[in-house]
Amino acid sequence: MARKPRSVDLTQVSEWDDGKIHRKEDYLAAEEPLEIRIGDDPLSVTMRTPGHDLELAAGFLFTEGLIQRRAQIVALEALEPDAGTVAENRGNVVIAELAPESAPDFEKMRRHFFAASSCGICGKASIDSVRARTLAAPNPNFRFDPEVLVRLPDALRESQAVFGRTGGLHAAGLFDADGTLLVLREDIGRHNAVDKVIGWALLEERVPLGETILLVSGRGGFEIVQKAIVAGLPVVASVSAPSSLAVQLARELGQTLIGFLRGRRFVVYSGAERIGKA
Amino acid sequence: MARKPRSVDLTQVSEWDDGKIHRKEDYLAAEEPLEIRIGDDPLSVTMRTPGHDLELAAGFLFTEGLIQRRAQIVALEALEPDAGTVAENRGNVVIAELAPESAPDFEKMRRHFFAASSCGICGKASIDSVRARTLAAPNPNFRFDPEVLVRLPDALRESQAVFGRTGGLHAAGLFDADGTLLVLREDIGRHNAVDKVIGWALLEERVPLGETILLVSGRGGFEIVQKAIVAGLPVVASVSAPSSLAVQLARELGQTLIGFLRGRRFVVYSGAERIGKA
Repeated sequence: MARKPRSVDLTQVSEWDDGKIHRKEDYLAAEEPLEIRIGDDPLSVTMRTPGHDLELAAGFLFTEGLIQRRAQIVALEALEPDAGTVAENRGNVVIAELAPESAPDFEKMRRHFFAASSCGICGKASIDSVRARTLAAPNPNFRFDPEVLVRLPDALRESQAVFGRTGGLHAAGLFDADGTLLVLREDIGRHNAVDKVIGWALLEERVPLGETILLVSGRGGFEIVQKAIVAGLPVVASVSAPSSLAVQLARELGQTLIGFLRGRRFVVYSGAERIGKA
Repeated sequence: MARKPRSVDLTQVSEWDDGKIHRKEDYLAAEEPLEIRIGDDPLSVTMRTPGHDLELAAGFLFTEGLIQRRAQIVALEALEPDAGTVAENRGNVVIAELAPESAPDFEKMRRHFFAASSCGICGKASIDSVRARTLAAPNPNFRFDPEVLVRLPDALRESQAVFGRTGGLHAAGLFDADGTLLVLREDIGRHNAVDKVIGWALLEERVPLGETILLVSGRGGFEIVQKAIVAGLPVVASVSAPSSLAVQLARELGQTLIGFLRGRRFVVYSGAERIGKA
């Protein structure tokens, strides 16, 4: 019988504790490769925690600029474990059928990469590339109440059932201005957790996400801010530090970027004008 | 004048602290794209923290299986900021010249990817791919003293000068069996910090690293264990949780994998037989 991928595995380990060793059982965050195909063409392979794979694929296609709206996805399905002659896929393949006008030109993607690199590799080029595939600036009229914001990390942690068991999963949560959690997704890769959240929103026809706050565990790097901007998110918050390029991107494209959201304190790196009453 | 990439940037931010907002200066971990070229052919673009770029490129070429030894690198240099007509590269390009027999066949790399994916995407295929490019199993005779191991996280933290300022950088450190730190590298990407450490070792003609321990801040995922195994490292330790696939890889290829190394306690996920006196 085909084994379905799981998000947590149980295994035997040894614990060394101040000189004494004992055996015990331990939960591990699962990590397996996921291949995304456009029809028969492999597009990408990424290591991810199994679960919500269709959302991950939809989010990836959207935040990486291959599609601009839900309707361009004609079909999206996970290859069943052990389907056909492929004995080992274990449900680790998602196949997307895109509308003819949005099917990617793989040769063009390749040329685009070369073109980008020949005109210089720098933060500015990376930011311009995000700007080019952002449909709308993050909602300039959205306001958030800081008293709501400081409650979000606890809300995220309380919802992270898996996290308590393994300590190995990143979380991304989408909240409305009242602090209500709309969706929470976890993954061993922070960018995958964000793609799952945005993919959920895309499939639910909720993008652009102009009235919501994205909270991520860990750090806010360029990749996270980039995906959030493509989805039109006005506010991205994390419990840790952002990178220099993430801050530069958020400033240039008008997104509020918050870091070190801990207790009743946070740092605003960009877009402080959105602090107010929701 | 050309600006050299730096590993830390200073910026103005706003801090919200229990209802009061004030302006302050804050350090940010720098993040910029690095392009690695083989001669004139772009090979990869990765977001990294500037610094030790040649080591990063050397480590990447080695741990990703493009080269197997130091001698295959004929030349390795960073494009000077503003060199030639490329106004924006800012030192974010490293060019490697490889020995003729090891220059990659890009078309073959592409075919290999398709071949790999058509035979099934799963953890086993990922492990087989690492096995195929591992020259030697991690040294089975290496032993480490747990009393030395538990001192390493403090040693790593004390050496992390940048970490104290930004909280945004991952670290990877290489220690000998006595607990002496051989090299420490930091990066906003954990895998880059590991590539910088292994690249340093490769350029110093120290691989395979059969007598050393690699300690990484954060989590031990598949990518980290994979790179460490290719470099012949017998022991990889982290202060957090490994993933299921990292554990499976370490077990199948004979590497000792340690997680939750905190205080006088750690969990051994694989290779407990290496615990002993060094």
